[in-house]
Amino acid sequence: MNDRPLGVFDSGLGGLSVVRALWHHLPSESIVYFGDTGRFPYGTRSPEVIRRFSRQNAAFLLERRCKAVVVACNTASAHALEDLAGHLAVPVLGVVEPGVEAALAAHHGGRLGLLATSGTVGSGAYAKALRRRRPDLDLVSIAAPLFVALVEEGWTNTPATELIVREYTKGFAPGPFDAVILGCTHFPLLRPVLSKVLGPAVALVDAAEATAAATATLLRARGLERTGAAPRHEFFVSDAPEKFETLGPLFLGTHVRLPSVVHIENY
Amino acid sequence: MNDRPLGVFDSGLGGLSVVRALWHHLPSESIVYFGDTGRFPYGTRSPEVIRRFSRQNAAFLLERRCKAVVVACNTASAHALEDLAGHLAVPVLGVVEPGVEAALAAHHGGRLGLLATSGTVGSGAYAKALRRRRPDLDLVSIAAPLFVALVEEGWTNTPATELIVREYTKGFAPGPFDAVILGCTHFPLLRPVLSKVLGPAVALVDAAEATAAATATLLRARGLERTGAAPRHEFFVSDAPEKFETLGPLFLGTHVRLPSVVHIENY
Repeated sequence: MNDRPLGVFDSGLGGLSVVRALWHHLPSESIVYFGDTGRFPYGTRSPEVIRRFSRQNAAFLLERRCKAVVVACNTASAHALEDLAGHLAVPVLGVVEPGVEAALAAHHGGRLGLLATSGTVGSGAYAKALRRRRPDLDLVSIAAPLFVALVEEGWTNTPATELIVREYTKGFAPGPFDAVILGCTHFPLLRPVLSKVLGPAVALVDAAEATAAATATLLRARGLERTGAAPRHEFFVSDAPEKFETLGPLFLGTHVRLPSVVHIENY
Repeated sequence: MNDRPLGVFDSGLGGLSVVRALWHHLPSESIVYFGDTGRFPYGTRSPEVIRRFSRQNAAFLLERRCKAVVVACNTASAHALEDLAGHLAVPVLGVVEPGVEAALAAHHGGRLGLLATSGTVGSGAYAKALRRRRPDLDLVSIAAPLFVALVEEGWTNTPATELIVREYTKGFAPGPFDAVILGCTHFPLLRPVLSKVLGPAVALVDAAEATAAATATLLRARGLERTGAAPRHEFFVSDAPEKFETLGPLFLGTHVRLPSVVHIENY
């Protein structure tokens, strides 16, 4: 039993999908969310810069007395997780390992795929995580950067969206695929189109959902979970809090009050 | 006659299209280009942050002894041009005023349109610049943020691109339109599809091209132009210089050597 909040950070607001999943798996936990909107996106930045930003984000969360840090950003998970784990005094979780675990759970002899941003695919983090567990399995990785723009524009189910999904997922032929990891917080919002295009036999693995489940397991294993009612949720960003109003509900499934602005460069 | 270089900055690499146009209009000028790739994109940032970044970018260019500063970024032109003009000792040009001038030159009684990012449309800068000149004319402004992602992905002429262009430009009905300003450095690369969808009667005004022409006029008027051969061009970015290799030629029309990295936060 530990009353302190759980810290979650992301390069922007997509990580709110992890918060939503945490609400489902850990309804009693208080959460502090930091979205680094002032330095979004991370996908195009160099690994050193991503590690520096991630350390600052984690420092802010620890200042808010967080008992664990969830890195909801795929790019930061890929490039900064080991660095954070090495110097933070609290447990750190990323989205990559849980995503791979969930894909393996859906594996029954077919192939495994990944859809993510160019940065995440380029990092090779998902492929490496899979190879560590199952050196005999390949991951067919496809960078689909347009998906982020489509989701942020609210175009999750238009004819153009379907055409773009068809074009990107051509790389998954020949199949058959057992599971495709949605390795970007934005992609689960395209689930209906992806499911239509890839067919019902392909499990679409939501890394956010898998991460929330892994967080619940970790907190229980270490006796860190909070019980009881009235958890407290706080939201912070590093610039332009008004974007939260349009994008927040998309990922969170509900409205919350506008976030406070943090000067993250000072951390 | 002035041998010092011309400075150009942009939030990223799209502003290289202005460099390309400057090469055409002012082939003898040396150019220093700074692309703020480490803090790209500006479109989603607050006006104060954009002004602060723009001051730093200009300070870097002045340190390189630039005789004039061209703000190739639409968002920075919209939010920071007055601020820069007020405190820099050299002439400053943005892309908005030249774009509006060029649209008016194509005007013959029909309507005028703008395609730009959400940030540029939201700033109202093009609409205000038009109103100052012609209070009787309205600007039909459409935010088309997906265009940037399409261009960066190299999808300038796919079936999905055409669908997306058709969807966005629905807002231009009813016409007839004399001119549509391409108020983002990425959009001229979609010219073939835009032209197909909007029809040959609509002039597509490239703000980058118009800005280069305006820069040539300004340098001549002030006796600041360089004559003679062998201009020297230098390229700088604030992060991930390797992106220059794929995106650079797209906007520049040619390969140049990899840019140097500047720690812009120190300016």
